[in-house]
Amino acid sequence: MDEKKLSIICFSGDFDKAVAAFTLATGAAAVNYKVNLFFTFWGLNILKKKQGRAFIGRGFLARVFNFLMGGSKKLPLSRLNFGGVSPDLMTYMMKQKNVATLPELIDAAKALNVNLIACEMAMHILDLKKEDLIPEVKEIIGVPSFLELSKGAQIIFIS
Amino acid sequence: MDEKKLSIICFSGDFDKAVAAFTLATGAAAVNYKVNLFFTFWGLNILKKKQGRAFIGRGFLARVFNFLMGGSKKLPLSRLNFGGVSPDLMTYMMKQKNVATLPELIDAAKALNVNLIACEMAMHILDLKKEDLIPEVKEIIGVPSFLELSKGAQIIFIS
Amino acid sequence: MDEKKLSIICFSGDFDKAVAAFTLATGAAAVNYKVNLFFTFWGLNILKKKQGRAFIGRGFLARVFNFLMGGSKKLPLSRLNFGGVSPDLMTYMMKQKNVATLPELIDAAKALNVNLIACEMAMHILDLKKEDLIPEVKEIIGVPSFLELSKGAQIIFIS
Repeated sequence: MDEKKLSIICFSGDFDKAVAAFTLATGAAAVNYKVNLFFTFWGLNILKKKQGRAFIGRGFLARVFNFLMGGSKKLPLSRLNFGGVSPDLMTYMMKQKNVATLPELIDAAKALNVNLIACEMAMHILDLKKEDLIPEVKEIIGVPSFLELSKGAQIIFIS
Repeated sequence: MDEKKLSIICFSGDFDKAVAAFTLATGAAAVNYKVNLFFTFWGLNILKKKQGRAFIGRGFLARVFNFLMGGSKKLPLSRLNFGGVSPDLMTYMMKQKNVATLPELIDAAKALNVNLIACEMAMHILDLKKEDLIPEVKEIIGVPSFLELSKGAQIIFIS
Repeated sequence: MDEKKLSIICFSGDFDKAVAAFTLATGAAAVNYKVNLFFTFWGLNILKKKQGRAFIGRGFLARVFNFLMGGSKKLPLSRLNFGGVSPDLMTYMMKQKNVATLPELIDAAKALNVNLIACEMAMHILDLKKEDLIPEVKEIIGVPSFLELSKGAQIIFIS
């Protein structure tokens, strides 16, 4: 009756925080939480179809920002990034320890029916279209719809 | 009966995160949430009356920190700041897209009766007085009072 | 009957955010909240027994990361760190103002029965053992157990 719900707002596009977001999301889904994972601003980088740097969007500034922000293979570590070496080392350590890596966590999230959502306003500012994101993203919604989905949920903001 | 409440702790003084805080706050208030927006530490920069860099506070260190931290016109982007150019470019992109800019979001928050609150302890450490903040800040309270206000609310921490 | 509960996930190892985590935790515990403070990834630095930089863990990469991440005396300020001078200046300002410093806040947390918990997966990746952490850490648990502890709680994520 009393449904368990977790809503995670992933504002960050850092590698370590993306791992945290998906670890929480899949861990909660595994124990039967209904999980909504809402990506906004930098977090959208995790969902881009093009995983490297790419000029996407239409306006000049949007294209430059999107290029600089990069995709899911270019997420930096929030500290000690060392020019992008650290996320690879971290992935190596995770594999050695048999811990799910980021791409595996994203797959697990799909398998566990975690609802992947993109923020309408951030998509609009960065001039991104639904087809720029991986197909698992089913909805693009604004704050009021997200709050509606999150009624009765515990909410976590990852910045 | 079952009042909808959202409490946001804005610890960050980054431009992009300030936009996120006010977007969430106004979006929630627009659909009849009672919103408390509590600013602490770096977040106080968003509320300072002096929008540029200014030596405020009394102690020497407090004055230096406040100068370096700056006001609402000096908020950096959390990444890709490029010496402060990016927040201006971002504002330009938001205007182009007819998305509310930060000053407009702050005005909307007032209009929608979002309760702007400053953290007592952070004000004390940084030697800030009520008159150093914009007049819309009605209360300066501590953690216990904030928790009391947030009873039954969903809480979000923006760091 | 209606127990007041607060769960804080401390993902950050920044000085200012650690102060925020413990200020919230002790403030809530003081007004009779049951507080669970869960440390993961960078946040584990706050709990390490060795407060400076130390090669702990077994694998080569884990040892290097742990050394670079440092302990509770090496937490950087999230901005304006100036090579580690700022946390000391901040502590000086807090003392001048009779505000509890970080070590005092940690002591207060123990006295107020704040439940200090370490994240199982992050400990595993960074190759840390229970004996590498201060003895006040009673439990090392995963996400599902943390969610179980947090049933009915307000959850805050400090990143």
